[in-house]
Amino acid sequence: MKRNHDNAGTSNDSATNSSEATNNPLLPYISEFDEVQKKLLSLDEECANEQMNLQRKFDKKKQPFFDKRQEIIDKIPGFWCKALTHHPALSYLTSADLPVLEHLKSIQLFDNLDNNGSYKLTLNFTDKAKEYMSPLSLTKHVVFDLNKESVKECTKITWKPGKSPVEEALKARKNDKCIDWSLFEWFTEDEWLNRPDVGEIIRREIWHAPLAYYMDTVSIDYFDDEYDMIDDEDDM
Amino acid sequence: MKRNHDNAGTSNDSATNSSEATNNPLLPYISEFDEVQKKLLSLDEECANEQMNLQRKFDKKKQPFFDKRQEIIDKIPGFWCKALTHHPALSYLTSADLPVLEHLKSIQLFDNLDNNGSYKLTLNFTDKAKEYMSPLSLTKHVVFDLNKESVKECTKITWKPGKSPVEEALKARKNDKCIDWSLFEWFTEDEWLNRPDVGEIIRREIWHAPLAYYMDTVSIDYFDDEYDMIDDEDDM
Repeated sequence: MKRNHDNAGTSNDSATNSSEATNNPLLPYISEFDEVQKKLLSLDEECANEQMNLQRKFDKKKQPFFDKRQEIIDKIPGFWCKALTHHPALSYLTSADLPVLEHLKSIQLFDNLDNNGSYKLTLNFTDKAKEYMSPLSLTKHVVFDLNKESVKECTKITWKPGKSPVEEALKARKNDKCIDWSLFEWFTEDEWLNRPDVGEIIRREIWHAPLAYYMDTVSIDYFDDEYDMIDDEDDM
Repeated sequence: MKRNHDNAGTSNDSATNSSEATNNPLLPYISEFDEVQKKLLSLDEECANEQMNLQRKFDKKKQPFFDKRQEIIDKIPGFWCKALTHHPALSYLTSADLPVLEHLKSIQLFDNLDNNGSYKLTLNFTDKAKEYMSPLSLTKHVVFDLNKESVKECTKITWKPGKSPVEEALKARKNDKCIDWSLFEWFTEDEWLNRPDVGEIIRREIWHAPLAYYMDTVSIDYFDDEYDMIDDEDDM
Protein backbone atom coordinates (compact mmCIF):
# COMPACT_ATOMS: atom_id res chain seq x y z
CA MET A 1 0.00 0.00 0.00
CA LYS A 2 1.21 3.46 -0.83
CA ARG A 3 1.28 5.76 2.14
CA ASN A 4 -0.28 9.17 1.62
CA HIS A 5 1.81 12.05 2.91
CA ASP A 6 -0.67 14.75 1.87
CA ASN A 7 -2.59 16.75 4.43
CA ALA A 8 -6.05 15.33 5.01
CA GLY A 9 -7.59 18.75 4.27
CA THR A 10 -6.56 18.96 0.64
CA SER A 11 -7.98 15.56 -0.28
CA ASN A 12 -11.45 16.35 1.08
CA ASP A 13 -13.82 15.27 -1.69
CA SER A 14 -16.62 17.52 -0.48
CA ALA A 15 -14.57 20.67 -1.09
CA THR A 16 -16.11 22.93 -3.72
CA ASN A 17 -14.29 23.58 -6.97
CA SER A 18 -13.56 27.16 -6.03
CA SER A 19 -11.95 26.18 -2.75
CA GLU A 20 -10.01 23.51 -4.62
CA ALA A 21 -8.72 26.24 -6.88
CA THR A 22 -7.65 28.22 -3.86
CA ASN A 23 -6.09 25.18 -2.25
CA ASN A 24 -4.33 24.02 -5.38
CA PRO A 25 -1.71 26.61 -6.29
CA LEU A 26 -0.95 24.69 -9.52
CA LEU A 27 -4.26 25.45 -11.22
CA PRO A 28 -3.42 28.88 -12.71
CA TYR A 29 -0.24 27.46 -14.27
CA ILE A 30 -1.32 24.00 -15.34
CA SER A 31 -1.66 24.66 -19.08
CA GLU A 32 1.62 26.57 -19.18
CA PHE A 33 3.29 23.68 -17.30
CA ASP A 34 1.73 21.18 -19.66
CA GLU A 35 3.06 23.06 -22.68
CA VAL A 36 6.60 22.88 -21.31
CA GLN A 37 6.26 19.15 -20.63
CA LYS A 38 4.94 18.57 -24.16
CA LYS A 39 7.92 20.41 -25.63
CA LEU A 40 10.28 18.27 -23.51
CA LEU A 41 8.48 15.11 -24.60
CA SER A 42 8.70 16.06 -28.26
CA LEU A 43 12.47 16.66 -27.89
CA ASP A 44 12.76 13.24 -26.22
CA GLU A 45 10.94 11.64 -29.15
CA GLU A 46 13.12 13.49 -31.65
CA CYS A 47 16.19 12.27 -29.79
CA ALA A 48 14.95 8.65 -29.71
CA ASN A 49 14.27 8.79 -33.46
CA GLU A 50 17.72 10.16 -34.24
CA GLN A 51 19.27 7.51 -32.00
CA MET A 52 17.36 4.83 -33.88
CA ASN A 53 18.59 6.22 -37.21
CA LEU A 54 22.11 6.02 -35.84
CA GLN A 55 21.43 2.44 -34.76
CA ARG A 56 20.32 1.57 -38.28
CA LYS A 57 23.41 3.23 -39.75
CA PHE A 58 25.54 0.98 -37.54
CA ASP A 59 23.38 -2.08 -38.28
CA LYS A 60 24.38 -1.54 -41.91
CA LYS A 61 28.05 -1.19 -41.00
CA LYS A 62 27.79 -4.46 -39.06
CA GLN A 63 26.18 -6.43 -41.88
CA PRO A 64 29.43 -7.43 -43.70
CA PHE A 65 30.70 -8.83 -40.41
CA PHE A 66 27.50 -10.80 -39.85
CA ASP A 67 27.96 -12.18 -43.38
CA LYS A 68 31.59 -13.06 -42.63
CA ARG A 69 30.47 -14.71 -39.40
CA GLN A 70 27.92 -16.82 -41.22
CA GLU A 71 30.64 -17.93 -43.68
CA ILE A 72 32.60 -19.27 -40.71
CA ILE A 73 29.51 -20.86 -39.19
CA ASP A 74 28.84 -22.62 -42.51
CA LYS A 75 31.93 -24.71 -41.75
CA ILE A 76 30.70 -25.74 -38.29
CA PRO A 77 27.80 -28.20 -38.61
CA GLY A 78 25.11 -27.83 -35.96
CA PHE A 79 26.47 -24.47 -34.80
CA TRP A 80 23.15 -22.65 -34.50
CA CYS A 81 21.43 -25.66 -32.92
CA LYS A 82 24.01 -25.70 -30.13
CA ALA A 83 24.02 -21.92 -29.70
CA LEU A 84 20.23 -21.81 -29.40
CA THR A 85 19.75 -24.81 -27.14
CA HIS A 86 22.49 -23.61 -24.75
CA HIS A 87 20.40 -20.57 -23.96
CA PRO A 88 18.76 -21.26 -20.58
CA ALA A 89 15.42 -19.83 -21.68
CA LEU A 90 15.40 -22.37 -24.51
CA SER A 91 16.47 -25.29 -22.37
CA TYR A 92 12.96 -26.68 -22.03
CA LEU A 93 12.50 -27.15 -25.74
CA THR A 94 11.10 -30.57 -26.56
CA SER A 95 13.85 -33.03 -27.51
CA ALA A 96 11.86 -33.55 -30.72
CA ASP A 97 13.14 -30.11 -31.83
CA LEU A 98 16.76 -31.28 -31.87
CA PRO A 99 16.85 -33.44 -35.03
CA VAL A 100 15.25 -30.53 -36.91
CA LEU A 101 17.36 -27.74 -35.35
CA GLU A 102 20.51 -29.70 -36.20
CA HIS A 103 19.85 -28.74 -39.79
CA LEU A 104 19.50 -25.03 -39.01
CA LYS A 105 22.07 -23.55 -41.38
CA SER A 106 21.78 -19.79 -40.98
CA ILE A 107 19.82 -17.07 -39.24
CA GLN A 108 18.97 -13.77 -40.88
CA LEU A 109 17.95 -10.85 -38.73
CA PHE A 110 16.61 -7.59 -40.09
CA ASP A 111 16.52 -5.55 -36.94
CA ASN A 112 15.09 -2.11 -36.11
CA LEU A 113 13.03 -1.94 -39.29
CA ASP A 114 11.30 1.14 -37.90
CA ASN A 115 11.66 3.52 -34.97
CA ASN A 116 9.67 1.18 -32.76
CA GLY A 117 12.17 -1.66 -33.16
CA SER A 118 10.15 -3.96 -35.40
CA TYR A 119 12.17 -6.88 -36.74
CA LYS A 120 12.13 -9.80 -39.17
CA LEU A 121 13.82 -13.09 -38.39
CA THR A 122 14.44 -15.94 -40.83
CA LEU A 123 15.71 -19.42 -39.96
CA ASN A 124 17.18 -21.23 -42.98
CA PHE A 125 17.50 -25.02 -42.89
CA THR A 126 19.56 -27.38 -45.06
CA ASP A 127 17.94 -29.83 -47.46
CA LYS A 128 18.26 -32.50 -44.79
CA ALA A 129 15.35 -30.86 -42.95
CA LYS A 130 13.13 -31.81 -45.91
CA GLU A 131 12.25 -35.09 -44.25
CA TYR A 132 10.65 -33.06 -41.42
CA MET A 133 9.01 -30.01 -42.93
CA SER A 134 8.51 -27.53 -45.68
CA PRO A 135 9.39 -24.86 -46.50
CA LEU A 136 13.01 -24.75 -45.38
CA SER A 137 13.07 -21.03 -44.66
CA LEU A 138 10.90 -19.89 -41.77
CA THR A 139 10.24 -16.18 -41.39
CA LYS A 140 8.45 -14.20 -38.74
CA HIS A 141 8.06 -10.44 -39.07
CA VAL A 142 7.11 -8.80 -35.77
CA VAL A 143 5.87 -5.22 -35.79
CA PHE A 144 5.70 -2.94 -32.76
CA ASP A 145 3.39 0.02 -32.77
CA LEU A 146 2.82 2.04 -29.60
CA ASN A 147 4.26 -0.91 -27.67
CA LYS A 148 1.62 -3.21 -29.15
CA GLU A 149 3.09 -6.22 -30.90
CA SER A 150 1.61 -7.75 -34.04
CA VAL A 151 2.75 -10.32 -36.59
CA LYS A 152 2.96 -8.95 -40.12
CA GLU A 153 4.23 -12.13 -41.77
CA CYS A 154 4.72 -15.68 -40.52
CA THR A 155 5.64 -18.79 -42.46
CA LYS A 156 3.13 -21.60 -42.08
CA ILE A 157 5.09 -24.81 -41.51
CA THR A 158 3.81 -28.04 -43.05
CA TRP A 159 5.13 -31.05 -41.13
CA LYS A 160 5.73 -34.45 -42.71
CA PRO A 161 3.45 -37.08 -41.12
CA GLY A 162 4.66 -38.10 -37.66
CA LYS A 163 7.59 -35.63 -37.83
CA SER A 164 6.14 -32.60 -36.08
CA PRO A 165 7.94 -31.53 -32.88
CA VAL A 166 5.00 -29.22 -32.20
CA GLU A 167 2.70 -32.26 -32.02
CA GLU A 168 5.21 -33.96 -29.73
CA ALA A 169 5.26 -30.97 -27.39
CA LEU A 170 1.47 -30.72 -27.34
CA LYS A 171 1.25 -34.45 -26.58
CA ALA A 172 3.82 -34.13 -23.78
CA ARG A 173 1.97 -31.20 -22.24
CA LYS A 174 -1.12 -33.34 -21.74
CA ASN A 175 0.81 -34.29 -18.64
CA ASP A 176 0.22 -31.15 -16.55
CA LYS A 177 3.67 -31.29 -15.01
CA CYS A 178 5.39 -31.18 -18.39
CA ILE A 179 6.41 -27.74 -19.65
CA ASP A 180 8.13 -28.88 -22.85
CA TRP A 181 7.50 -26.69 -25.84
CA SER A 182 8.73 -26.47 -29.39
CA LEU A 183 10.64 -23.53 -30.81
CA PHE A 184 8.55 -24.03 -33.94
CA GLU A 185 5.40 -23.15 -31.97
CA TRP A 186 6.71 -19.56 -32.02
CA PHE A 187 5.99 -19.45 -35.74
CA THR A 188 2.43 -18.38 -35.18
CA GLU A 189 0.40 -15.27 -35.90
CA ASP A 190 -1.35 -15.73 -32.57
CA GLU A 191 -0.25 -13.77 -29.53
CA TRP A 192 2.78 -15.50 -27.96
CA LEU A 193 2.41 -15.58 -24.21
CA ASN A 194 3.74 -17.50 -21.21
CA ARG A 195 6.76 -18.90 -23.04
CA PRO A 196 10.17 -17.39 -23.70
CA ASP A 197 10.04 -15.02 -26.67
CA VAL A 198 12.22 -16.79 -29.24
CA GLY A 199 12.56 -13.69 -31.41
CA GLU A 200 13.67 -11.41 -28.58
CA ILE A 201 16.09 -14.02 -27.22
CA ILE A 202 17.73 -14.41 -30.61
CA ARG A 203 17.86 -10.72 -31.57
CA ARG A 204 18.89 -9.34 -28.20
CA GLU A 205 21.11 -12.09 -26.86
CA ILE A 206 22.20 -15.02 -29.01
CA TRP A 207 22.73 -12.78 -32.05
CA HIS A 208 25.26 -10.66 -30.14
CA ALA A 209 27.30 -13.50 -28.64
CA PRO A 210 26.62 -16.75 -30.53
CA LEU A 211 30.14 -18.00 -29.88
CA ALA A 212 29.67 -17.73 -26.11
CA TYR A 213 26.35 -19.58 -26.37
CA TYR A 214 27.82 -22.27 -28.62
CA MET A 215 30.65 -22.81 -26.14
CA ASP A 216 28.17 -22.55 -23.24
CA THR A 217 30.32 -19.96 -21.44
CA VAL A 218 27.66 -17.34 -20.71
CA SER A 219 27.44 -16.69 -16.98
CA ILE A 220 24.39 -18.21 -15.35
CA ASP A 221 24.14 -15.23 -12.95
CA TYR A 222 23.24 -13.11 -15.94
CA PHE A 223 20.32 -15.36 -16.82
CA ASP A 224 19.02 -15.43 -13.28
CA ASP A 225 18.46 -11.69 -13.53
CA GLU A 226 16.80 -11.87 -16.91
CA TYR A 227 14.69 -14.97 -16.65
CA ASP A 228 14.30 -15.70 -12.96
CA MET A 229 15.33 -19.23 -13.68
CA ILE A 230 16.38 -21.48 -10.85
CA ASP A 231 19.71 -23.04 -11.61
CA ASP A 232 21.83 -25.57 -9.80
CA GLU A 233 25.32 -24.41 -9.01
CA ASP A 234 26.32 -27.67 -10.67
CA ASP A 235 25.51 -26.05 -13.98
CA MET A 236 28.36 -23.59 -13.70
CA MET B 1 18.19 -26.27 -13.43
CA LYS B 2 19.25 -25.87 -17.01
CA ARG B 3 18.68 -28.95 -19.07
CA ASN B 4 21.61 -30.09 -21.20
CA HIS B 5 20.68 -30.97 -24.77
CA ASP B 6 24.24 -31.90 -25.79
CA ASN B 7 25.19 -35.48 -26.59
CA ALA B 8 26.78 -37.16 -23.59
CA GLY B 9 29.80 -38.13 -25.72
CA THR B 10 31.02 -34.62 -26.41
CA SER B 11 31.02 -33.63 -22.76
CA ASN B 12 33.11 -36.57 -21.64
CA ASP B 13 35.78 -35.08 -19.40
CA SER B 14 38.20 -37.95 -19.93
CA ALA B 15 38.44 -37.25 -23.65
CA THR B 16 41.95 -36.31 -24.75
CA ASN B 17 42.66 -32.85 -26.15
CA SER B 18 43.25 -34.22 -29.62
CA SER B 19 39.90 -36.04 -29.72
CA GLU B 20 38.26 -32.86 -28.40
CA ALA B 21 39.76 -31.03 -31.36
CA THR B 22 38.35 -33.65 -33.69
CA ASN B 23 34.98 -33.54 -31.95
CA ASN B 24 34.79 -29.78 -31.83
CA PRO B 25 34.50 -28.47 -35.37
CA LEU B 26 34.78 -24.89 -34.07
CA LEU B 27 38.42 -25.12 -33.00
CA PRO B 28 40.09 -24.37 -36.36
CA TYR B 29 37.96 -21.22 -36.74
CA ILE B 30 37.77 -19.91 -33.20
CA SER B 31 40.25 -17.05 -33.53
CA GLU B 32 38.75 -15.95 -36.85
CA PHE B 33 35.28 -16.07 -35.26
CA ASP B 34 36.54 -14.13 -32.28
CA GLU B 35 37.96 -11.41 -34.52
CA VAL B 36 34.60 -10.93 -36.20
CA GLN B 37 32.82 -10.72 -32.83
CA LYS B 38 35.36 -8.16 -31.60
CA LYS B 39 34.77 -6.02 -34.66
CA LEU B 40 30.99 -6.21 -34.09
CA LEU B 41 31.46 -5.31 -30.42
CA SER B 42 33.60 -2.31 -31.28
CA LEU B 43 30.93 -1.07 -33.74
CA ASP B 44 28.33 -1.52 -30.97
CA GLU B 45 30.45 0.56 -28.60
CA GLU B 46 30.98 3.23 -31.24
CA CYS B 47 27.24 3.33 -31.82
CA ALA B 48 26.48 3.59 -28.08
CA ASN B 49 28.96 6.47 -27.75
CA GLU B 50 27.46 8.35 -30.69
CA GLN B 51 23.98 7.79 -29.27
CA MET B 52 25.13 9.19 -25.93
CA ASN B 53 26.58 12.27 -27.68
CA LEU B 54 23.22 12.74 -29.35
CA GLN B 55 21.53 12.39 -25.96
CA ARG B 56 23.76 15.11 -24.56
CA LYS B 57 23.01 17.37 -27.55
CA PHE B 58 19.31 16.97 -26.77
CA ASP B 59 19.87 17.40 -23.01
CA LYS B 60 21.26 20.85 -23.91
CA LYS B 61 18.25 21.61 -26.13
CA LYS B 62 15.98 20.66 -23.25
CA GLN B 63 17.70 22.86 -20.67
CA PRO B 64 15.81 26.12 -21.49
CA PHE B 65 12.55 24.20 -21.01
CA PHE B 66 13.71 22.80 -17.68
CA ASP B 67 14.55 26.39 -16.68
CA LYS B 68 11.14 27.59 -17.83
CA ARG B 69 9.54 24.74 -15.88
CA GLN B 70 11.39 25.72 -12.73
CA GLU B 71 10.15 29.31 -13.17
CA ILE B 72 6.59 27.99 -13.09
CA ILE B 73 7.35 25.71 -10.14
CA ASP B 74 8.75 28.72 -8.24
CA LYS B 75 5.16 29.99 -8.08
CA ILE B 76 3.81 26.73 -6.61
CA PRO B 77 4.99 26.35 -3.00
CA GLY B 78 5.76 22.80 -1.94
CA PHE B 79 5.68 21.52 -5.53
CA TRP B 80 8.78 19.33 -5.37
CA CYS B 81 7.86 18.00 -1.92
CA LYS B 82 4.52 16.76 -3.27
CA ALA B 83 6.01 15.41 -6.51
CA LEU B 84 8.66 13.45 -4.64
CA THR B 85 6.50 12.06 -1.87
CA HIS B 86 3.81 10.93 -4.32
CA HIS B 87 6.32 8.52 -5.85
CA PRO B 88 5.47 5.08 -4.43
CA ALA B 89 9.13 4.18 -3.91
CA LEU B 90 9.44 7.26 -1.69
CA SER B 91 6.23 6.66 0.22
CA TYR B 92 8.00 5.16 3.23
CA LEU B 93 10.02 8.27 3.92
CA THR B 94 9.91 9.23 7.57
CA SER B 95 7.30 11.90 8.26
CA ALA B 96 10.17 13.91 9.78
CA ASP B 97 11.36 14.55 6.18
CA LEU B 98 8.20 16.48 5.29
CA PRO B 99 8.79 19.79 7.12
CA VAL B 100 12.23 19.95 5.50
CA LEU B 101 11.15 18.81 2.01
CA GLU B 102 8.40 21.46 2.04
CA HIS B 103 11.17 24.00 1.62
CA LEU B 104 12.71 22.21 -1.38
CA LYS B 105 12.71 25.00 -3.96
CA SER B 106 14.40 23.55 -7.02
CA ILE B 107 16.17 20.49 -8.35
CA GLN B 108 19.11 20.67 -10.72
CA LEU B 109 20.09 17.62 -12.70
CA PHE B 110 23.23 17.34 -14.78
CA ASP B 111 22.60 14.07 -16.52
CA ASN B 112 24.77 11.84 -18.72
CA LEU B 113 27.98 13.61 -17.77
CA ASP B 114 29.92 10.86 -19.51
CA ASN B 115 29.24 7.90 -21.79
CA ASN B 116 28.49 5.72 -18.78
CA GLY B 117 25.58 7.90 -17.65
CA SER B 118 27.18 9.52 -14.59
CA TYR B 119 25.07 12.33 -13.12
CA LYS B 120 25.03 15.13 -10.58
CA LEU B 121 21.92 16.08 -8.66
CA THR B 122 21.43 19.18 -6.50
CA LEU B 123 18.48 19.90 -4.21
CA ASN B 124 18.13 23.60 -3.38
CA PHE B 125 16.14 24.64 -0.31
CA THR B 126 14.71 28.04 0.67
CA ASP B 127 16.03 30.02 3.63
CA LYS B 128 13.22 28.56 5.71
CA ALA B 129 15.11 25.26 5.80
CA LYS B 130 17.84 27.03 7.80
CA GLU B 131 16.14 26.08 11.04
CA TYR B 132 16.78 22.44 10.12
CA MET B 133 20.12 22.20 8.36
CA SER B 134 23.01 23.72 6.55
CA PRO B 135 24.00 24.11 3.82
CA LEU B 136 20.81 24.74 1.82
CA SER B 137 22.09 23.16 -1.40
CA LEU B 138 22.69 19.43 -1.27
CA THR B 139 24.66 17.85 -4.11
CA LYS B 140 25.51 14.27 -4.92
CA HIS B 141 27.66 13.41 -7.92
CA VAL B 142 27.40 9.75 -8.86
CA VAL B 143 29.93 8.28 -11.27
CA PHE B 144 29.53 5.02 -13.19
CA ASP B 145 32.55 3.25 -14.52
CA LEU B 146 32.25 -0.27 -15.99
CA ASN B 147 28.87 -0.51 -14.23
CA LYS B 148 30.53 0.18 -10.89
CA GLU B 149 29.01 3.11 -9.05
CA SER B 150 31.00 5.53 -6.94
CA VAL B 151 30.31 8.89 -5.30
CA LYS B 152 32.60 11.66 -6.52
CA GLU B 153 31.07 14.44 -4.45
CA CYS B 154 28.46 14.53 -1.70
CA THR B 155 27.39 17.41 0.52
CA LYS B 156 27.78 16.70 4.23
CA ILE B 157 24.60 17.91 5.94
CA THR B 158 24.86 19.51 9.39
CA TRP B 159 21.56 19.22 11.24
CA LYS B 160 20.41 21.70 13.86
CA PRO B 161 20.08 20.03 17.28
CA GLY B 162 16.97 17.86 17.48
CA LYS B 163 16.01 18.68 13.88
CA SER B 164 17.53 15.73 11.99
CA PRO B 165 15.05 13.50 10.11
CA VAL B 166 17.90 11.02 9.65
CA GLU B 167 18.12 10.65 13.44
CA GLU B 168 14.32 10.25 13.58
CA ALA B 169 14.44 7.48 10.97
CA LEU B 170 17.30 5.69 12.73
CA LYS B 171 15.38 5.91 16.02
CA ALA B 172 12.20 4.57 14.39
CA ARG B 173 14.09 1.64 12.82
CA LYS B 174 15.13 0.42 16.27
CA ASN B 175 11.69 -1.15 16.05
CA ASP B 176 12.47 -3.99 13.63
CA LYS B 177 9.08 -3.74 11.95
CA CYS B 178 9.62 -0.11 10.99
CA ILE B 179 11.09 0.50 7.52
CA ASP B 180 10.95 4.31 7.63
CA TRP B 181 13.95 6.02 6.13
CA SER B 182 14.97 9.55 5.34
CA LEU B 183 15.63 10.84 1.85
CA PHE B 184 18.54 12.74 3.38
CA GLU B 185 20.22 9.43 4.24
CA TRP B 186 20.91 9.12 0.51
CA PHE B 187 23.41 11.98 0.83
CA THR B 188 26.19 9.63 1.76
CA GLU B 189 29.45 8.55 0.16
CA ASP B 190 28.81 5.02 1.42
CA GLU B 191 27.33 2.38 -0.87
CA TRP B 192 23.55 2.85 -0.97
CA LEU B 193 21.84 -0.52 -0.76
CA ASN B 194 18.47 -2.01 0.16
CA ARG B 195 16.56 1.27 -0.19
CA PRO B 196 15.10 2.95 -3.25
CA ASP B 197 17.78 4.84 -5.17
CA VAL B 198 16.71 8.46 -4.76
CA GLY B 199 18.98 9.68 -7.57
CA GLU B 200 17.74 7.14 -10.12
CA ILE B 201 14.10 7.73 -9.16
CA ILE B 202 14.46 11.47 -9.66
CA ARG B 203 16.53 11.39 -12.87
CA ARG B 204 14.67 8.59 -14.61
CA GLU B 205 11.10 9.15 -13.43
CA ILE B 206 10.10 12.22 -11.47
CA TRP B 207 12.28 14.50 -13.62
CA HIS B 208 10.41 13.43 -16.78
CA ALA B 209 6.88 13.79 -15.42
CA PRO B 210 6.86 15.95 -12.28
CA LEU B 211 3.40 17.27 -13.04
CA ALA B 212 1.93 13.76 -13.07
CA TYR B 213 3.65 12.98 -9.76
CA TYR B 214 2.52 16.26 -8.21
CA MET B 215 -1.06 15.51 -9.25
CA ASP B 216 -0.63 11.87 -8.22
CA THR B 217 -1.95 10.61 -11.56
CA VAL B 218 0.81 8.13 -12.42
CA SER B 219 -0.68 4.67 -12.87
CA ILE B 220 0.03 2.30 -10.01
CA ASP B 221 0.34 -0.62 -12.45
CA TYR B 222 3.47 0.99 -13.75
CA PHE B 223 5.04 1.05 -10.32
CA ASP B 224 4.17 -2.55 -9.65
CA ASP B 225 6.40 -3.53 -12.54
CA GLU B 226 9.24 -1.31 -11.49
CA TYR B 227 9.27 -1.71 -7.76
CA ASP B 228 7.36 -4.87 -6.97
CA MET B 229 5.34 -2.91 -4.49
CA ILE B 230 2.11 -4.31 -3.16
CA ASP B 231 -0.66 -1.80 -3.55
CA ASP B 232 -4.28 -1.74 -2.49
CA GLU B 233 -6.74 -1.13 -5.28
CA ASP B 234 -8.02 1.60 -2.96
CA ASP B 235 -5.03 3.64 -3.91
CA MET B 236 -6.16 4.01 -7.50
